Amino acid sequence: MSEKLDQLKEILGEVSDLGHAGAILSWDQQVNMPPAGGEARGQQLATLGKLAQEKFTSDEMGILLEDLKKEFPDPDTDEGALVRVTARDYNKAKRVPADFVAEQALAATQGLDAWVEAKGKSDFSIFRPFLEKNVELVKKYISFFPPADHPYDVLLDDYEPGLPTAEVQEIFGNLRPKQVELIKSISETKQVKDDFLHKSFNEGKVWGFGESIITKFGYDFNRGRQDKAPHPFETTFNVNDVRITNRFEKNAPLATLFSAMHECGHALYEMGSNPAYERTPLAGGTSLAVHESQSRMWENLVGRSLPFWEHFYPDLKKTFSSQLDGVGLKAFYKAINKVEPSFIRVNADEATYNMHIMLRLEIEIGMVDGSIEIKDLPDIWNAKMEDYLGVVPPNDAQGVLQDIHWSYGSIGYFSTYALGNIISAQLWEKINKEIKDLDEQIRKGQFGELREWLRANIHVYGHKYDPRDIVRKVTGEDIDSAAYVRYLTKKYSEIYGL
Amino acid sequence: MSEKLDQLKEILGEVSDLGHAGAILSWDQQVNMPPAGGEARGQQLATLGKLAQEKFTSDEMGILLEDLKKEFPDPDTDEGALVRVTARDYNKAKRVPADFVAEQALAATQGLDAWVEAKGKSDFSIFRPFLEKNVELVKKYISFFPPADHPYDVLLDDYEPGLPTAEVQEIFGNLRPKQVELIKSISETKQVKDDFLHKSFNEGKVWGFGESIITKFGYDFNRGRQDKAPHPFETTFNVNDVRITNRFEKNAPLATLFSAMHECGHALYEMGSNPAYERTPLAGGTSLAVHESQSRMWENLVGRSLPFWEHFYPDLKKTFSSQLDGVGLKAFYKAINKVEPSFIRVNADEATYNMHIMLRLEIEIGMVDGSIEIKDLPDIWNAKMEDYLGVVPPNDAQGVLQDIHWSYGSIGYFSTYALGNIISAQLWEKINKEIKDLDEQIRKGQFGELREWLRANIHVYGHKYDPRDIVRKVTGEDIDSAAYVRYLTKKYSEIYGL
Repeated sequence: MSEKLDQLKEILGEVSDLGHAGAILSWDQQVNMPPAGGEARGQQLATLGKLAQEKFTSDEMGILLEDLKKEFPDPDTDEGALVRVTARDYNKAKRVPADFVAEQALAATQGLDAWVEAKGKSDFSIFRPFLEKNVELVKKYISFFPPADHPYDVLLDDYEPGLPTAEVQEIFGNLRPKQVELIKSISETKQVKDDFLHKSFNEGKVWGFGESIITKFGYDFNRGRQDKAPHPFETTFNVNDVRITNRFEKNAPLATLFSAMHECGHALYEMGSNPAYERTPLAGGTSLAVHESQSRMWENLVGRSLPFWEHFYPDLKKTFSSQLDGVGLKAFYKAINKVEPSFIRVNADEATYNMHIMLRLEIEIGMVDGSIEIKDLPDIWNAKMEDYLGVVPPNDAQGVLQDIHWSYGSIGYFSTYALGNIISAQLWEKINKEIKDLDEQIRKGQFGELREWLRANIHVYGHKYDPRDIVRKVTGEDIDSAAYVRYLTKKYSEIYGL
Repeated sequence: MSEKLDQLKEILGEVSDLGHAGAILSWDQQVNMPPAGGEARGQQLATLGKLAQEKFTSDEMGILLEDLKKEFPDPDTDEGALVRVTARDYNKAKRVPADFVAEQALAATQGLDAWVEAKGKSDFSIFRPFLEKNVELVKKYISFFPPADHPYDVLLDDYEPGLPTAEVQEIFGNLRPKQVELIKSISETKQVKDDFLHKSFNEGKVWGFGESIITKFGYDFNRGRQDKAPHPFETTFNVNDVRITNRFEKNAPLATLFSAMHECGHALYEMGSNPAYERTPLAGGTSLAVHESQSRMWENLVGRSLPFWEHFYPDLKKTFSSQLDGVGLKAFYKAINKVEPSFIRVNADEATYNMHIMLRLEIEIGMVDGSIEIKDLPDIWNAKMEDYLGVVPPNDAQGVLQDIHWSYGSIGYFSTYALGNIISAQLWEKINKEIKDLDEQIRKGQFGELREWLRANIHVYGHKYDPRDIVRKVTGEDIDSAAYVRYLTKKYSEIYGL
């Protein structure tokens, strides 16, 4: 046993507790908090953030880390990985003054409140000054770091360590023409019918059906819960308290099922993290893209597959007999995979989804390098929507205000969604080589072997390996869109008879 | 403006934020947390408590306070009161090591979990080792302070600054024979019928009726919310986020209404605190007894009065027409004021309530001075119940396990409930002199003038005045049970025709 390692873990434990306390306060803010509570909550979150930052960046930490790097030089051991990951985070955090962290946390809370109001009223002007403030703070944040090839690199690195903007642009660049071509081919064929998906569904029954699905996936309600919030998300308070939120939209009632599967995918990753990593930076998912590979896998590769609905459709049809009257399995399967350019990212089909991401990435890069002014955002958003997807949102709530992320200053995040799609397909090819009868298992409603495979190969490692390293470790490949293109092409060729 | 005062307020603001974050975590633990989350939650609460304690007891604070005592010597100014109250709390906190605070917080969380399980299974043996640990820690806590007349004084002082055990025993000693005599007189007369109160009531409708009552009292759902929890309580996250919890018991369905009024009384006190006191020790109620004077006033002096039900009974009868079929207003009023020795303190009538408190006070004093062993608690509890109230609980869930307080190490608290009753009657006599038509207002469902009187005379002062000082300031009297005896005697003489 190393005394210095114990000292490090004690500090990290307190930092982790402060972070998780902040997560609980944020969750409460979105799920429970009465309207008037926002201002004080912002102050409370700012204080927790400031204290965590102070503890994490103390000189004591720096000295401990220098000593421990020598004591545990092998990054393949848990101890070595802990020192490596902590030192990297420490060196980053050292650059950011505690007062700035508090200022950003306060702006985030105020931005979130303003966004909720702006979205409710579909009025971007309410949100604009808060977004301007958030972007100003993001630029200030970037200024604390050495100049990179692109200022956006600094932001992206917080979500995907070591992945530069140019590489993401290249990965997207390869994918883009193929995805555009696929959308074009689909648009030229006969469209599928999905009118029955827009009928009126009972909210409670949909909610319950979603919970029955994720229970089968292995989401443990003894260690989590699902609540209503304006935006679906997963949040971790510790490995035994991993919560998800969801929403119900009358005009897309079954979207609730897919959101539940999506957030469950995130939750399974967090719930599967090695308990020995608790209260250290190794706990939880390694990056947002790898996280998203899990959520998108459960939502799409599992949840929008034909074998999945061979199992669940009879129950669904029994639960919603009038809405699904006369709708066969194949017709339902096609409907939930209907390709149709639409306004809302989280409800977008797999064929168009990445276009929403590319739009956001371009706008974020523009906000950060100053080539886009915030006041022009609604117009730019709508113009790009028309360019990429041929549709223009009827209002800001369904356009530039739809996502929660920018409201709390989270910029640099969006591309990880598309990277997650790409990685999920790479993993899926690998899994299907190792679990030969996976389709058959899914057809029987059995998800245990898949979940345990993911746990053993990915989840259990937490933050031990960087995103590209874990992808390489599991698949033997770099992040590459080929598998995703194969997956999309095969799926939609069958559905649309391309 | 004083620079040192600003420095003090900055530290106090962070301490307050940590405390409120802890309150949110505790609330979540009781309202939302999945079962497996308890252990990590305990650690998180321990860390928040430890950091708050470290900040509050820093040497910097001590130096600031010494300087500020000279700068603001007048305790009647807000600044002077802030310095006085902070210095008192500081001098106490200084005596308690940070590690001990963390240890106690952890034991509290584990105790709470064990209590929930023990109560569910009605098995004291599950809870016993955790209570033993809590009592052991309480004794250790007492040992940090100079010897007092009675070790229990140290605990009581945390809830009622300056009020020694002997004085409480004297106040109770005066009240006791009169209350016993009253109970005896009542038991010798014809008993009232209340069978209709134990019929089956729809939980959602009762819950909604309770919320409609407290909305009329002035509880602002824009600044709070009511949730289900194993035990009703009020908790404050800031002046604009003051929450209450409640429960529904099938065998006493309308108890939910009175719990709602009770917790609303606490909440109105907190919501009425001067906003300028936020993030300082002056915010919120000054002591538990004064707090309880507010909750018991709204629950009993208002909520169990005839004028109150003259207003609400027609609606209640409409809402529960089958249960209350043939039950007139007077019969209902008598039923909700029925005197009957019973097992559960929170459901006890006003005539017997204080006997429950005296029982608990004696047991607490015995646990603290070592004259009572924890293993004997169920037997002692049951024996005292038989002595004081002539009834023996059929199981521990309805006996020694009924209250949440000891589970998280809160010992020293109970007598404040009876003191609250006593103070509430003193205040009520004063209010009725100043608001001549109060009964008439209540009969019309108007509570604004009462609430604003309480706000202006008590709530707005927060912690500025100590409990006995605010009672004296408002009523011109010391804490004294005479008004309470007059109130009880008049009320029950009318109901029971004594």
